[in-house]
Amino acid sequence: MASENKQIHLKTRPEGEPQADHFEVITAEIPKPGDGEALCQIRYLSLDPYMRGQISGRHISGVVNPGDLLMGETVGEVVESNNSELAVGDLITFRGGWQQYALTDGSDFQPVDPRIDPPSLALGILGMPGLTAYAGLLHLGEPKEGDTLMVSASSGPVGSMVGQIGRIKGCRVIGIAGSDEKCRWCVEEAGFEACINYKTENLADAIDRHCPDGVNVYFDNVGGDTLEAVIWRLALGARVVLCGLSSQYNTAEMPPGPNPGSIIRARAIVRGLVVYDHQDKKPAMLEDVLSWLQAGDIKYREDITEGIENAPQAFARLMSGKNFGKTIVKVS
Amino acid sequence: MASENKQIHLKTRPEGEPQADHFEVITAEIPKPGDGEALCQIRYLSLDPYMRGQISGRHISGVVNPGDLLMGETVGEVVESNNSELAVGDLITFRGGWQQYALTDGSDFQPVDPRIDPPSLALGILGMPGLTAYAGLLHLGEPKEGDTLMVSASSGPVGSMVGQIGRIKGCRVIGIAGSDEKCRWCVEEAGFEACINYKTENLADAIDRHCPDGVNVYFDNVGGDTLEAVIWRLALGARVVLCGLSSQYNTAEMPPGPNPGSIIRARAIVRGLVVYDHQDKKPAMLEDVLSWLQAGDIKYREDITEGIENAPQAFARLMSGKNFGKTIVKVS
Repeated sequence: MASENKQIHLKTRPEGEPQADHFEVITAEIPKPGDGEALCQIRYLSLDPYMRGQISGRHISGVVNPGDLLMGETVGEVVESNNSELAVGDLITFRGGWQQYALTDGSDFQPVDPRIDPPSLALGILGMPGLTAYAGLLHLGEPKEGDTLMVSASSGPVGSMVGQIGRIKGCRVIGIAGSDEKCRWCVEEAGFEACINYKTENLADAIDRHCPDGVNVYFDNVGGDTLEAVIWRLALGARVVLCGLSSQYNTAEMPPGPNPGSIIRARAIVRGLVVYDHQDKKPAMLEDVLSWLQAGDIKYREDITEGIENAPQAFARLMSGKNFGKTIVKVS
Repeated sequence: MASENKQIHLKTRPEGEPQADHFEVITAEIPKPGDGEALCQIRYLSLDPYMRGQISGRHISGVVNPGDLLMGETVGEVVESNNSELAVGDLITFRGGWQQYALTDGSDFQPVDPRIDPPSLALGILGMPGLTAYAGLLHLGEPKEGDTLMVSASSGPVGSMVGQIGRIKGCRVIGIAGSDEKCRWCVEEAGFEACINYKTENLADAIDRHCPDGVNVYFDNVGGDTLEAVIWRLALGARVVLCGLSSQYNTAEMPPGPNPGSIIRARAIVRGLVVYDHQDKKPAMLEDVLSWLQAGDIKYREDITEGIENAPQAFARLMSGKNFGKTIVKVS
């Protein structure tokens, strides 16, 4: 075991896209577990767009101020334990943060199901992003066989699962992504019917072409101009799941949204999704997604960076849209 | 029977608030009913904010161009009939338009239930506005006992019924209206708990004061700044019914709406309402509202103008917000 604990702290609040130098590497001591606590060595750290909101001081899940350790979901291995529920060698997911070692008091962890291989998937398609897609699409999006399902950020961990679960449920799936490579993956690997590169195509025209009868279900991960383009092209009775706002994570102001006439026109149902409300669906998600994975019905991509000291660069890349797949830092 | 048929035609498309001189009175011949048709003398004409959208050329229910007869829902009395379903003397509601006499081919009328007294209520709280309120609140708003229900344009025919049905269902009802007189009526006559005059009070502060735990159901008739203020003050799991956009009926551009983060934050369900989808609930509405009326649980106001030639002034007054109660033209 190492003798020190490298951590990443926020140095200054970024304006616009975060860069690596908004963060700093701090060397701390490895903490000792007290009564009821366990020490974990972090194996994998998940980097997610919602963290941009925490750094701005406006995310529902908490706020990170300059000088603070960054928060984040991790896979850790128990290396010392004073907690009867946690044995040395156990793999768990918990909010370990951007560091090499972290304590848990045992109140907020989940064991990594031994069928999850590699364990990093417990942070991706079999973790929070997977649950976001599964609960959001099936419980809020109400997809029906034959529906045209549109999903933005469609090569990301949430979007790619939304599209694939939709395909399994019998939807025609049209993705929206930011590069030809990402679009190709959505069609050739993930089995979408089509995928629109919003950086090179006129999005409104492309939606009209791919969805001549309108969009029945739209799963929105981005907000902004993309939401505006899709929401005026909904079919009657459409469902819209508002999940993420990555188009505005780097902006200081909250931009306005679509005119409500768009929702009235389509008699649409628009629902806001926060994954923390849907923990009760996690066991069902795990069984379904594991069986789909085993059957070869689900493909996934991970974007893995080695070393906690490289987490800031990986996060900057994620927030610039240059990542491809679930962004993971392999910490040890 | 008169020998001529006065009609109101659109003269020019208004920009901004419509004035009486955007319309003109035309004298036409009284039409003769053909095979299967009936001639009706119009008794009452309903004037409604959605007509502003028809005149602008952008309403879901149709478009009125300069030179066209204005469309509108009416109560008519059959005076000549070649249709076996329509007898002379029958009172019906149908889309008779802004005129003294109109033909119906019998395909699109509803008899006025004899319990509806005065018959003008068939255009108000026992007609389309009543159905809008009833179906929108009960089927899309899902009010629960103890909910805080907020409604805008709350002294109008839709808003006043939303508030009163909500009160009957056990909600705390807070209205939003544009004059102290309208607010007083909502509280003293219609039994709302409170009503905010958005022209003299800071709306955001007033909502915070009246709804310290947030708004559970918001029935929106106006859009714009009012929607923006309410939507950031929703309780978790709130329902929003988007029914009308009177704040933008007089504008040429479609203004933007609230940032979608407002909906995500509250895990809200936002639904678009178009009353034409809810005709199947009309019999239930009629029975419920008639019984509430009889029990004295429902109050209403009508804003009645005499003479079809005065319809343009009445419409201008409606669109300036100076009306109070359901705007009706007594045609004969």
